[in-house]
Amino acid sequence: MSKKIITISRQCGSGGHTVGKLVSERLGIPFYDKKLIEIVAQRSGLTEETIAREGEFAPASLLYSIAMNLSHGYDVRSKGNMILPDQINTFQTELIKELAEKGPCVIVGRCANYILHDRSDCLHVYLHGDMEERKNRVVAEHRVLASEAEAHIRDRDRKRAKHYEHFTDQRWGMAQNYTICLDSSVLGIEKCVETIEALSK
Amino acid sequence: MSKKIITISRQCGSGGHTVGKLVSERLGIPFYDKKLIEIVAQRSGLTEETIAREGEFAPASLLYSIAMNLSHGYDVRSKGNMILPDQINTFQTELIKELAEKGPCVIVGRCANYILHDRSDCLHVYLHGDMEERKNRVVAEHRVLASEAEAHIRDRDRKRAKHYEHFTDQRWGMAQNYTICLDSSVLGIEKCVETIEALSK
Repeated sequence: MSKKIITISRQCGSGGHTVGKLVSERLGIPFYDKKLIEIVAQRSGLTEETIAREGEFAPASLLYSIAMNLSHGYDVRSKGNMILPDQINTFQTELIKELAEKGPCVIVGRCANYILHDRSDCLHVYLHGDMEERKNRVVAEHRVLASEAEAHIRDRDRKRAKHYEHFTDQRWGMAQNYTICLDSSVLGIEKCVETIEALSK
Repeated sequence: MSKKIITISRQCGSGGHTVGKLVSERLGIPFYDKKLIEIVAQRSGLTEETIAREGEFAPASLLYSIAMNLSHGYDVRSKGNMILPDQINTFQTELIKELAEKGPCVIVGRCANYILHDRSDCLHVYLHGDMEERKNRVVAEHRVLASEAEAHIRDRDRKRAKHYEHFTDQRWGMAQNYTICLDSSVLGIEKCVETIEALSK
């Protein structure tokens, strides 16, 4: 069976955005990374910054979440009796299921592999790489200072892992949660794209 | 750079032996699975059964190891001042490094990905799959009773993980320890073989 929905999970700096974009272009299917954040922001009435932060990184403390809820009121588009990270997760989960129903696409991050794990038409990808290569990439592409690159990467990966483990019953980065995992620093971006394209057919 | 040494780590029943053998045949390079056990047995003077059991599964308790050492004497081919699992691990490590030095090959199991992690000419593969598919495979290929298949798989995976974590500083099955991880139950054996072959070139 062809794998028409491709989810991409990734370590910070491993090239997940680039790989996902290239795969979507070669397969001629929609690409959801920042676009997903935009839609959740529109639907929830929260800012894109809030969605980007709370929707993929470690859930904030309960106290912080309650304060955020209070500042937004308890009525974020009818999901008002939940704390903020849970509200955002609910919006994201609904949207990711909708997108998969709609047709072939590439979705980056947001626990999409877990949300869609019951579908048999998905290729769940996890990208990782060695620290040096990832440092170079965040300096070149994310405008992070070289002196801060490693701390930046470790902080984001730690928060992403905590977020994933909060909203799933799985450990982030365990091979068995994905159809295929690739070391982008050993294989290079082009081979990662080719491999995903070949396995999606 | 081409990846001439291919190491294959695997969950029990995920088809690691079959995939490794097919890859070695297609690339025309030696295949070390049972053969590796035979060589370590010859060199150490221990039986193949002992090497198979102690060389990849959880190290036995210290008491058991001491009893085994006593029954073999403290002189297993000059590595006499170590307990048995450590002796076997030392033989295996030496042999795996030798094989990689000698030329292209496929090596299954035995922490080979960790032992060779400093070489840049290796493709480290991890295979996994869903429980149903793995149960079917161990019943068909390993002559395990259907009623005992799941317990057999869980026991072997648990012991393999403990062994790996005892002799490395890594967690078994974490994607970042391997160049590529593949779900053989979703992709099928043939696609796994094709992918490894393509990435080794």
